[in-house]
Amino acid sequence: MRHILVIGSGKSTSYLFKYLLEQSETENLHITVGDLDIDNAKKMIGNHKNATAITLDVFDKNSREDAVKKADIVISMLPARFHIEVAKDCVTYGKNMVTASYISDEMQALDQQVKDKGLVFMNEIGVDPGIDHMSAMQVIDRIRDKGGKMILFESFCGGLVAPESDNNLWNYKFTWNPRNVVVAGQGGAAKFLQENTYKYIPYHRLFRRTEFLEIEGFGRFEAYANRDSLKYQSVYGLDNIRTLYRGTMRRVGFSRAWQAFVLLGMTDDSYTIDDSENMSYRDFVNSFLPYSPTDSVELKFRHALKIDQDDMVWDKFVELDIFNPNKMVELKKGTPAQILQKILMDSWTLAEEDKDMLVMYHKFGYELDGKKQQIDSTMVCLGEDQTYTAMAKTVGLPVAIATLAILNKKITTPGVQLPINKEVYTPILNELENHGIIFKETEVPYLGYNPLNI
Amino acid sequence: MRHILVIGSGKSTSYLFKYLLEQSETENLHITVGDLDIDNAKKMIGNHKNATAITLDVFDKNSREDAVKKADIVISMLPARFHIEVAKDCVTYGKNMVTASYISDEMQALDQQVKDKGLVFMNEIGVDPGIDHMSAMQVIDRIRDKGGKMILFESFCGGLVAPESDNNLWNYKFTWNPRNVVVAGQGGAAKFLQENTYKYIPYHRLFRRTEFLEIEGFGRFEAYANRDSLKYQSVYGLDNIRTLYRGTMRRVGFSRAWQAFVLLGMTDDSYTIDDSENMSYRDFVNSFLPYSPTDSVELKFRHALKIDQDDMVWDKFVELDIFNPNKMVELKKGTPAQILQKILMDSWTLAEEDKDMLVMYHKFGYELDGKKQQIDSTMVCLGEDQTYTAMAKTVGLPVAIATLAILNKKITTPGVQLPINKEVYTPILNELENHGIIFKETEVPYLGYNPLNI
Repeated sequence: MRHILVIGSGKSTSYLFKYLLEQSETENLHITVGDLDIDNAKKMIGNHKNATAITLDVFDKNSREDAVKKADIVISMLPARFHIEVAKDCVTYGKNMVTASYISDEMQALDQQVKDKGLVFMNEIGVDPGIDHMSAMQVIDRIRDKGGKMILFESFCGGLVAPESDNNLWNYKFTWNPRNVVVAGQGGAAKFLQENTYKYIPYHRLFRRTEFLEIEGFGRFEAYANRDSLKYQSVYGLDNIRTLYRGTMRRVGFSRAWQAFVLLGMTDDSYTIDDSENMSYRDFVNSFLPYSPTDSVELKFRHALKIDQDDMVWDKFVELDIFNPNKMVELKKGTPAQILQKILMDSWTLAEEDKDMLVMYHKFGYELDGKKQQIDSTMVCLGEDQTYTAMAKTVGLPVAIATLAILNKKITTPGVQLPINKEVYTPILNELENHGIIFKETEVPYLGYNPLNI
Repeated sequence: MRHILVIGSGKSTSYLFKYLLEQSETENLHITVGDLDIDNAKKMIGNHKNATAITLDVFDKNSREDAVKKADIVISMLPARFHIEVAKDCVTYGKNMVTASYISDEMQALDQQVKDKGLVFMNEIGVDPGIDHMSAMQVIDRIRDKGGKMILFESFCGGLVAPESDNNLWNYKFTWNPRNVVVAGQGGAAKFLQENTYKYIPYHRLFRRTEFLEIEGFGRFEAYANRDSLKYQSVYGLDNIRTLYRGTMRRVGFSRAWQAFVLLGMTDDSYTIDDSENMSYRDFVNSFLPYSPTDSVELKFRHALKIDQDDMVWDKFVELDIFNPNKMVELKKGTPAQILQKILMDSWTLAEEDKDMLVMYHKFGYELDGKKQQIDSTMVCLGEDQTYTAMAKTVGLPVAIATLAILNKKITTPGVQLPINKEVYTPILNELENHGIIFKETEVPYLGYNPLNI
């Protein structure tokens, strides 16, 4: 019997447990699920005989160490900031570890100790980060193996609502942490490379500098730039690339409308609004517009944002009911972002029968035998229901598959890792294909941003 | 002989020394000027027999204490962050102190000790803060003494170029720290009160929400909101006021053009630009615009900012030469704000013969005997030359006058103070009038923002 300890049993773990439990007989696994809320842990594993739920407070040193000691490998599905204590225990007791989170500086600092003990700490192996790394590196390595030289890499990902459940004017619902959606893009200018020049976009312009993407069978999307387009430039071995851009996907039209909230300051999370609990939605909107004893909030909003009478973007705001004088904010001392989130959750929360969708789009431009070429690679994953979501599937399956691969000594390179090496991504991507997570590649003409070489 | 120690002899001290030296005979004063650069200190006092220049490093404890010990009162004209060490010495050795800076938390923390020793630490007694406090409180107190109730207070100040030297399209030159002008308004949304509702303006909208002001004989100005309109609400006793707004004055048209820099992200001071030393002004502008192998930076700039062919705002940018491909940024790893500052300094640095101008505008709305009324109060101060600037006059004279008043026991209330009490502002404003710093009051109809009481 091999013991897997999974800490955390939140929304993104449904497929992780499904996979591990399904494999538990043939692979001889016992899964222990630790959560602060043991009922949640129990719900995730049902009555499966190869699984046990325990109450686990990650800040309670003794019970945490105790659980880690008993395991052969530890998966932390906690929010990223809670991994580090678990990681230190894993070093102490010589256990391998898997997370779907970005490698923090604290985690990176353990690298030498992890190597010294011959352990594997596999991180960034969810969807984004995770599947994006693996699916990108597979194509990049293949191009390089053929002798090609990468000249362009663009990568986009989005958590959206499935077409069959897409029934609002924004073509958007929250399929992940709503707060992250409201504050997305804040914290500094976005930086990227276009034809060998650095380009910068301040937050308040981000949603007006989108580009369009088309996925066969799913229509048109748009993408706005991530802050960190250059983060993996060296990790991916793309130091001499001419164009490097990472972005977030939305349905066309989302960003143009979202810009209204950005421009008026309604996404600001840096200060609180006095007396917000007694404000109506209308009062909230009005607090970002000039005072007038007579002019309507609607006309002031149109005027401030230069929205013409016949511009259909208007209907998006009406749909959100932001001008309602009777719906109350209720939040005490809320930041604008918190209040906006509350208003959006009225409209953008998934209904019981709604399904989500995860989309990914990579563009690989390269030069081979003196010829510029391009491969586009797309992946669409649809959720099955509100438990078995596309988000949970694309996050949980790679984590689960990697965990088994480490247990079975198929992944052995020690250290604090992310999945960018062939021996890691090849078996995982192959198995993901069996679960319907499939990248479709098409060869397209390379255009770049300077097609005539001027 | 009374001994005054002045620490710092920068640009804003010319009138301070002129005043103190002129009074030194009749008032029996000796002035010691301490500066890191003794030549600067010497230049300020000439060969005046009642003054001595010394080298003073404010971080050298011994020489600082030594200088403080010998003085009867200490004026710190250092940048605000350097006051605190001097202030602590003044507490230790029982000396009164004067600064033109905002009261920092550290300074405020000394209040009880200062009171216990019966000392006066007078702060915020330059122009803004300083003359603004005094001139506002004089009118507010008068209105209250008559039984009036304040319903509106708006206060505006600007450091500008004098009309006779106003020869560029922005009607602006740097008369104070250029860096503060470039990053003005950053760091959080502006908040103010309009007809009893809080209003918020994010930084990227600040320069599009201006209002106009007219000063007789000087024409039209515009003002954008300060971040801290409510800072003095309680201090001024305006807790129940309906409208409270503080702003910065520019000539009409400045803000609309400045908005281009804000929108493109060229005023950002939070990150550095790679290889900025090898960029031309044109490259710098281009880094905030989408890549194109063919389209000109000029057209991309017009398009991004929606500047029509016949919009005269265009000439302002051309005047700054921001599209020049041959002028180099030169700064190493500069932030956008630092680079923009450099570009602006080419055009907006005062020439040898240029004069500056300081303008202030207060609006006092009040209710008296059931009638709403308003007093507008304006002050314009013109510089004489590049040494005797309006900025140095309006900063230095109140500091000097307050220092003498403390020495002569006309200001005696102990503690960490700002000049909002009658016994402080009355004699100082009276003497400022003798030096041409005069507020003109006019009674105007009260309009507020809801003139029909809807």
